[in-house]
Amino acid sequence: MSDPRILTVRPEPGEYAWTFGGSAPVARITPGTVLDLFTEDCFAGRVRSTRDFVSEVCDFPFLNPQTGPFHVEGAEPGDTVAVHFVSIEPARDWAASTTVPLFGALTSTHTTATLQPPLPEVVWMWQLDRERGTCRFTARDSDIEIDLPMDPMHGTVGVAPANLEVRSALVPDAHGGNMDTPEMRSGVTCYLGVNVEGALLSLGDGHARQGEGETCGVAVECAMNTVVIVELLKGVQTPWPRIESDTHIMSTGSARPLEDAFRISQLDLVQWLARDYGLSELDAYQLLSQAGEAPLANVCDTNYTSVAKIRKEWLPAGEPHRGLHRHLRETAAVLTR
Amino acid sequence: MSDPRILTVRPEPGEYAWTFGGSAPVARITPGTVLDLFTEDCFAGRVRSTRDFVSEVCDFPFLNPQTGPFHVEGAEPGDTVAVHFVSIEPARDWAASTTVPLFGALTSTHTTATLQPPLPEVVWMWQLDRERGTCRFTARDSDIEIDLPMDPMHGTVGVAPANLEVRSALVPDAHGGNMDTPEMRSGVTCYLGVNVEGALLSLGDGHARQGEGETCGVAVECAMNTVVIVELLKGVQTPWPRIESDTHIMSTGSARPLEDAFRISQLDLVQWLARDYGLSELDAYQLLSQAGEAPLANVCDTNYTSVAKIRKEWLPAGEPHRGLHRHLRETAAVLTR
Amino acid sequence: MSDPRILTVRPEPGEYAWTFGGSAPVARITPGTVLDLFTEDCFAGRVRSTRDFVSEVCDFPFLNPQTGPFHVEGAEPGDTVAVHFVSIEPARDWAASTTVPLFGALTSTHTTATLQPPLPEVVWMWQLDRERGTCRFTARDSDIEIDLPMDPMHGTVGVAPANLEVRSALVPDAHGGNMDTPEMRSGVTCYLGVNVEGALLSLGDGHARQGEGETCGVAVECAMNTVVIVELLKGVQTPWPRIESDTHIMSTGSARPLEDAFRISQLDLVQWLARDYGLSELDAYQLLSQAGEAPLANVCDTNYTSVAKIRKEWLPAGEPHRGLHRHLRETAAVLTR
Amino acid sequence: MSDPRILTVRPEPGEYAWTFGGSAPVARITPGTVLDLFTEDCFAGRVRSTRDFVSEVCDFPFLNPQTGPFHVEGAEPGDTVAVHFVSIEPARDWAASTTVPLFGALTSTHTTATLQPPLPEVVWMWQLDRERGTCRFTARDSDIEIDLPMDPMHGTVGVAPANLEVRSALVPDAHGGNMDTPEMRSGVTCYLGVNVEGALLSLGDGHARQGEGETCGVAVECAMNTVVIVELLKGVQTPWPRIESDTHIMSTGSARPLEDAFRISQLDLVQWLARDYGLSELDAYQLLSQAGEAPLANVCDTNYTSVAKIRKEWLPAGEPHRGLHRHLRETAAVLTR
Repeated sequence: MSDPRILTVRPEPGEYAWTFGGSAPVARITPGTVLDLFTEDCFAGRVRSTRDFVSEVCDFPFLNPQTGPFHVEGAEPGDTVAVHFVSIEPARDWAASTTVPLFGALTSTHTTATLQPPLPEVVWMWQLDRERGTCRFTARDSDIEIDLPMDPMHGTVGVAPANLEVRSALVPDAHGGNMDTPEMRSGVTCYLGVNVEGALLSLGDGHARQGEGETCGVAVECAMNTVVIVELLKGVQTPWPRIESDTHIMSTGSARPLEDAFRISQLDLVQWLARDYGLSELDAYQLLSQAGEAPLANVCDTNYTSVAKIRKEWLPAGEPHRGLHRHLRETAAVLTR
Repeated sequence: MSDPRILTVRPEPGEYAWTFGGSAPVARITPGTVLDLFTEDCFAGRVRSTRDFVSEVCDFPFLNPQTGPFHVEGAEPGDTVAVHFVSIEPARDWAASTTVPLFGALTSTHTTATLQPPLPEVVWMWQLDRERGTCRFTARDSDIEIDLPMDPMHGTVGVAPANLEVRSALVPDAHGGNMDTPEMRSGVTCYLGVNVEGALLSLGDGHARQGEGETCGVAVECAMNTVVIVELLKGVQTPWPRIESDTHIMSTGSARPLEDAFRISQLDLVQWLARDYGLSELDAYQLLSQAGEAPLANVCDTNYTSVAKIRKEWLPAGEPHRGLHRHLRETAAVLTR
Repeated sequence: MSDPRILTVRPEPGEYAWTFGGSAPVARITPGTVLDLFTEDCFAGRVRSTRDFVSEVCDFPFLNPQTGPFHVEGAEPGDTVAVHFVSIEPARDWAASTTVPLFGALTSTHTTATLQPPLPEVVWMWQLDRERGTCRFTARDSDIEIDLPMDPMHGTVGVAPANLEVRSALVPDAHGGNMDTPEMRSGVTCYLGVNVEGALLSLGDGHARQGEGETCGVAVECAMNTVVIVELLKGVQTPWPRIESDTHIMSTGSARPLEDAFRISQLDLVQWLARDYGLSELDAYQLLSQAGEAPLANVCDTNYTSVAKIRKEWLPAGEPHRGLHRHLRETAAVLTR
Repeated sequence: MSDPRILTVRPEPGEYAWTFGGSAPVARITPGTVLDLFTEDCFAGRVRSTRDFVSEVCDFPFLNPQTGPFHVEGAEPGDTVAVHFVSIEPARDWAASTTVPLFGALTSTHTTATLQPPLPEVVWMWQLDRERGTCRFTARDSDIEIDLPMDPMHGTVGVAPANLEVRSALVPDAHGGNMDTPEMRSGVTCYLGVNVEGALLSLGDGHARQGEGETCGVAVECAMNTVVIVELLKGVQTPWPRIESDTHIMSTGSARPLEDAFRISQLDLVQWLARDYGLSELDAYQLLSQAGEAPLANVCDTNYTSVAKIRKEWLPAGEPHRGLHRHLRETAAVLTR
């Protein structure tokens, strides 16, 4: 790749997108463009202390602001957009997490509807030490403090959905969106199937770190400075968002009940193995059954998200997408030198 | 601990249990006893070649033979039995896996009932190299062969259930049973709440390795030589099976839909953290949301099983069960010296 | 049918069964026997006023007492036991319903586990007017009273389960058990597949009436005087409990999530239509899709239960089970003359 | 009501809407307007013989054409639009139903994903006898024919969704949409909460009849001539679509898994009873548990839909929405005189 074009986007407050689809692009980019982005946190930056309750300071449905969308030139339905995460760096030295009334895995919700009152609304402020790479949990009901390693990621990355739809940025589905998987960290390439001309890629919802399942519904929410390289794979279909790291290939599925999210992710990985690694579907099913990892992403959003992953070193010869991930890693290495 | 009693049990074909509860104990043991066991594979050893279809060679409901049950002296409802896995070693140099008609995650089943015919019945024979610690996948539809590291585990460990019930050895639930989690490997301690006098502990269903989710419904099924130490924690309640390793504490939940298995495991770990580590429930909820791992165990059995785990090094001071796991590790080290 | 044998059973407090399977039969009966039974309510008669909270007056797991089991002579696996409900009459002039902590559809539960506290425990006493056939709802938080028609039914009827299991009387599954469908009223015939020699039939859990779904988890619970005729269909398989009324044939499915209960019941009715009415499976699928009713039974028990039903008058010529239901109706008419 | 305004809309092929939200209104109407509408069938009229397979003749995502949307003047978020169905009459003397690959309750689907091939694609043409009010099922694999009573209904009625979203007309959710409940027949009033200015009401997807659950995914699909009266209830909130007939009030819930659809519908009806009939929430919970009906609507669409209903004659004094339904019935009677 020759000298990559770099586009810097740091949106002003009124310039975020709140949906996938339905928003005018902020820029047109050519494949190969490096995007140097600022993303606001899922609260639009409004939760800044333990007294800032989401139900009071946030303005529904203006949650989960997205930086974008970007129109990728030449992208058409049937193609795949590849988003390589070069770096994801917290933009502040604090982050916030909260309970949200009737949201999360260990509470009844608007859909798992019960007559019980919601859990109390509590905010936890996390201090980030960017030098040491840690984030500090401060308990609210005792004087316990714990330093955890940071592991920055994006909860949300996606394109405009199919079927003429516009979806809230809080929703994960086949177009990507709010998948909330810790696997979306720097160094990986995310593959997204294109549904509309230009793809209309956007991302946001940075997390300084997140547990698998995102149990309380909210991660260590943090504004981010993020660099990605966007590429285009013409004529390659990607039915559900896929992720490639140096060590693994991964498929995601987003649905309810959770077993359907699992089924989608597993079937997609079986079919990926069959397409790119020369295994029959049943042989791939067997191999994945014995060699796969299945970390949950979120069990709290509109759809739940499950990840199916397998180590590349355990696969037969084969490299998906003509080595694009390896190539992007090299480009990224030059960028971050 | 003084010189531990060692009891060796290698059942004859007619001496296995097929249920949790409802079987007469094969032995009475005192807490601290070391059990040196042979366990047969889930097929009762009947799948020995790629021509041995489960639907033809197995004799329903005589699947998943259990070695045991053992009556633990002094165990009463409200207590906890601890099972420390000293070693789990394949007893043969081969193992088997199969598709089973209308069983598994990527097929309709007797409960996820459809009008579609079942998938073809296919057997994969795996060769084990116990010296190198690998097991070899041999594809059926191509000449691909792949060596994977062995990671021996028990799919099934449990006690007699509550509520006067007797459950098939194929079922995972609050009594343990067929949880099928790769976390049940050597070096861990499994805690099981006692429901009936003597607990009636048994185990079986060895796997040379298994992917998370056990997608096709069957792991690399293998007879095992397994050594465990059985202890008793008087007056300690364990609502759902828990596991402790040197690095993590873990809770399991088994239910359908899968989100309920997830909820159970997460709530149990929150309550464990609150009981033994001085966190309030809401603080534990927040910490787990950011620091937890959520690997799926099985998404194919009568109930699905999800595991919630967290690193001990990230927890406040506190040691569950008066350091029993550490103590058992030391005893095990002496045994295996 | 010649003069039918009549067996009267009114159990003493210690003589109930609390499980399906695992209990010694109270009597051996020949096919054609009329059983004249007393069944206690699901609380074992202990909730007698609005101050009698289940959590205080009941003795877990001794809930849902069953009258039986009855060993049906000649019944073997592969056969079907038919239970015709001649009459179901409340044995008292009151009935009780309650909320039960962490049980019911509009609360979190032990499996749909949350951090929220349970709903308050409240008891409603219902007055029955057996002459007018009404039962009176008395609100607890206002002076509202409402008379509803009685529609007596049995929540529980079943046989010993397959797979060597013993299940709590609170569980519905393929063996029947706690299906809690209002369709189990007088005048219908229930078909149950036999899993063990003698079938081991029992029933209980009378409801003066119940809404579809049994939302709060508890119906208008009432001791009953119930007369049934028990018949045996040799060599007829019944995979899931089926019900025949004068107007409809019905299949039940019990599973979680609820869509699986629905799928089971619908597939079973499709296969029943194909077996007894000359339709192909796909034609039956289409007919049921347009002509079927799908009333929910319970969405609160260990498994949820869905009913698939279709009007006989809309079916092609064909009479299941050689006209047994019609025959039993005639016998019942003689009995109740 | 004075002389009602009548607006007739018979769209040309290019004039249908394919989404809720995101389409420009075809007309602005004042509350009280009578709409005299033609609605095309869900296949856009393209399935006309048993050789017309959906996978071949239909043009995804252009399925389920909606007549509308109508901008209701004065409608704002927080209000409720009432749609009274005066008449629903088949516009042709035939209707069509089909299996659709990987769609329906008794097949694996794109979300309940399996490795099995789809069921065969089969079309059933139904002959309608509008004079006798019957529709004729013609089996494909035998010479069986069955006349069923027609019971015309609309599968789809809804408004623009909340949260800035645009949803496919195939989706049911809180905005209504593709609920596919047989309760949406002539004589009922449907209440829909307004999410955007003007509400943007549309409807379509007529069915000559449909079974509960719409098991195969497709009803007896039919173009309709339908007359509705549209009213506006200022300041009345309707969280989920509600239906009122002469005999019942009903709430709907649309979600996955199916128990969540059930929970939503039941909780909504409990809260409706509490708001308009003077019962406490717990008393309403008890009353509904014993007096409610719970017919399934669809168990095949993007979300499943469950209906909770209760007889008005069993309710305490109270009339929802100031007697609007009764009033609309009278207006309708004048119109159809």
